[in-house]
Amino acid sequence: MITGHGGNKRKLAEKLGCALEEIIDMSSNLNPLGPPEIIESFICENVMKIRSLPEPDAASMRAGFARCHGMDENRVVAGNGTTWFIYILPFALGSKKALIAGPTYSDYRDACFMYHTDVEHCLATPENGFQPKADAISRLAAKADTVFLCNPDNPTGALMSKDKIEYLLKKHQSTLFIVDESYLPFVENAEDLSFVSETGYENLIVLSSMSKIYRIPGLRTGFLTGDPKIVEKIMAFYQPWSVNALAQAVIEHIFDHPEAIEPFFKKTRAYIRAERQRFMESLRGVSGLELFDSTTCFILARLKDGLSSGEFCERIGQHRVLIRDCSNFMGLSDQYVRFSLKKRDANEHLSALVRKALGHE
Amino acid sequence: MITGHGGNKRKLAEKLGCALEEIIDMSSNLNPLGPPEIIESFICENVMKIRSLPEPDAASMRAGFARCHGMDENRVVAGNGTTWFIYILPFALGSKKALIAGPTYSDYRDACFMYHTDVEHCLATPENGFQPKADAISRLAAKADTVFLCNPDNPTGALMSKDKIEYLLKKHQSTLFIVDESYLPFVENAEDLSFVSETGYENLIVLSSMSKIYRIPGLRTGFLTGDPKIVEKIMAFYQPWSVNALAQAVIEHIFDHPEAIEPFFKKTRAYIRAERQRFMESLRGVSGLELFDSTTCFILARLKDGLSSGEFCERIGQHRVLIRDCSNFMGLSDQYVRFSLKKRDANEHLSALVRKALGHE
Repeated sequence: MITGHGGNKRKLAEKLGCALEEIIDMSSNLNPLGPPEIIESFICENVMKIRSLPEPDAASMRAGFARCHGMDENRVVAGNGTTWFIYILPFALGSKKALIAGPTYSDYRDACFMYHTDVEHCLATPENGFQPKADAISRLAAKADTVFLCNPDNPTGALMSKDKIEYLLKKHQSTLFIVDESYLPFVENAEDLSFVSETGYENLIVLSSMSKIYRIPGLRTGFLTGDPKIVEKIMAFYQPWSVNALAQAVIEHIFDHPEAIEPFFKKTRAYIRAERQRFMESLRGVSGLELFDSTTCFILARLKDGLSSGEFCERIGQHRVLIRDCSNFMGLSDQYVRFSLKKRDANEHLSALVRKALGHE
Repeated sequence: MITGHGGNKRKLAEKLGCALEEIIDMSSNLNPLGPPEIIESFICENVMKIRSLPEPDAASMRAGFARCHGMDENRVVAGNGTTWFIYILPFALGSKKALIAGPTYSDYRDACFMYHTDVEHCLATPENGFQPKADAISRLAAKADTVFLCNPDNPTGALMSKDKIEYLLKKHQSTLFIVDESYLPFVENAEDLSFVSETGYENLIVLSSMSKIYRIPGLRTGFLTGDPKIVEKIMAFYQPWSVNALAQAVIEHIFDHPEAIEPFFKKTRAYIRAERQRFMESLRGVSGLELFDSTTCFILARLKDGLSSGEFCERIGQHRVLIRDCSNFMGLSDQYVRFSLKKRDANEHLSALVRKALGHE
């Protein structure tokens, strides 16, 4: 395992000598409105499911996901978190040369390293707000057998339009594109932008995280969808009982109640949009800080007056608020931090702390 | 994933048109006294842990296991069930030629197949009650880089003594032995027979399942222990957040309360020994059936009058009792079935059904 993952809440609590619960974690990209209330009581009502093995291939939750997205079950795999897919894909696909569109989540690269897959990066730049350039990706995709795209991207929040991705899919039909839509459910009109239900492309894999939108990262569960031939290839490397019984029960329950999903998504999107606007607005014109436009639940920021991300995070951390130091993202530097939006009072509190850390109050 | 795993409760319920809960599952090797009462209420009290990511490397539960077994943390890996280890080991160890002492759990072979590791079997025979022969294993181990031993064995229930395993470990020091102790906690004096705390051998890996003894297979959690150099090798292929947050919390809680573990183990062992004796006794002299001596919580049986395991399981299944058809174990045939002991009334019920299925009542 490659260490250096995101915000370590436990570490900050130890450093400050406070309880874990006292830390406000604005480093992790989770739905501030979640988990939906029903989930935790549902787990308690179904806790006896730990006494039996779960379904070996999580068939029922796969069927639920397929039903909800109007697709065949043989296009769906259920995993022990999206991370599991990321780490099995280069091996299961036999990837020799991967292209990663970044700056992005470092686990794509780490997974490739694990299997000695060659990696190239196509890095978007701050000059155009980290917007991924399809032409630049296309040039490099021609030499790769596998391309990783995080859409919208983590940590930049930039979104690639559907037509740009389709352009790539059509142009490079012998290259497999892995589109990670973990943060798409937070975006307006996500359904129109998503490739989950799309069946026209044989060179496309889509990753859907349940952790972020439902705020259940501790349960470990996510989905992969793709052409049945690709799914078969991945299932050849599937380990029985990968997804625990409580996760299977929760996800089955969620997809058995589609009438509850849509309003929950709608409410979340409206909330995130409003909070993002308020937060950006509250820091408009503050010198020493540049905020990048985001389409999702977190915002990338650049520190401009020589203050390092480490020092900045420490200043914020003193107030028991954890944000993400982005210095270890390939294509970023110690000028960058990421703020994940939470409930309004936390967001307002963070905004005030940011001003203070920059010497404005 | 290779299909054909053990008893499918759901399938039997569908066939009989009854509810899943009406099936008595005597096909899965789980503690009839578990889970300890405290576990399920503990999960409900800690259910909010699903809202955050678990520890990436499950450090706290590793530390708990290490503390309880009086060993260093750097000798311990925590996984998403023991199965996860079985499926990662041939790859992480770079195994080219594996030896499997059988008849045994088919996932060792399936895992080797996944990574194109050559497999040879050393099969014990019914003539000596499926007792593994150290000399026969030794002859074949000389040609292997990796040896799988399930101790006690599933499905035969046969136990290999510690000195026989030590003989193999000393004789073949460049061969890595993977000893799966999943069913050892059910055995009398398990602590004296276990290699978990043993630190003298660099060519030894031990697998410890939490699923069976605590009856929490739905939670997905297990441990691997070995020399720090081997552990490092495996951790290089470790996926962050493999073990879900509720499993981590439960296991931490168990090892934080060692005073509860010993009495629970003691009670379980006494119960299993008594039930095994009663069950064997109740079927003594019944023609058409041979029961093999077992040291653990399940019993292998051979059908002797031409009745196939499929037909026999069906006759038992009609009464909503699921047992394990062992025809798909390499080294067994459609003459074999496995009975897993449950509570006394279920065991007595099964004993009567066995007589009936054999035409004795």
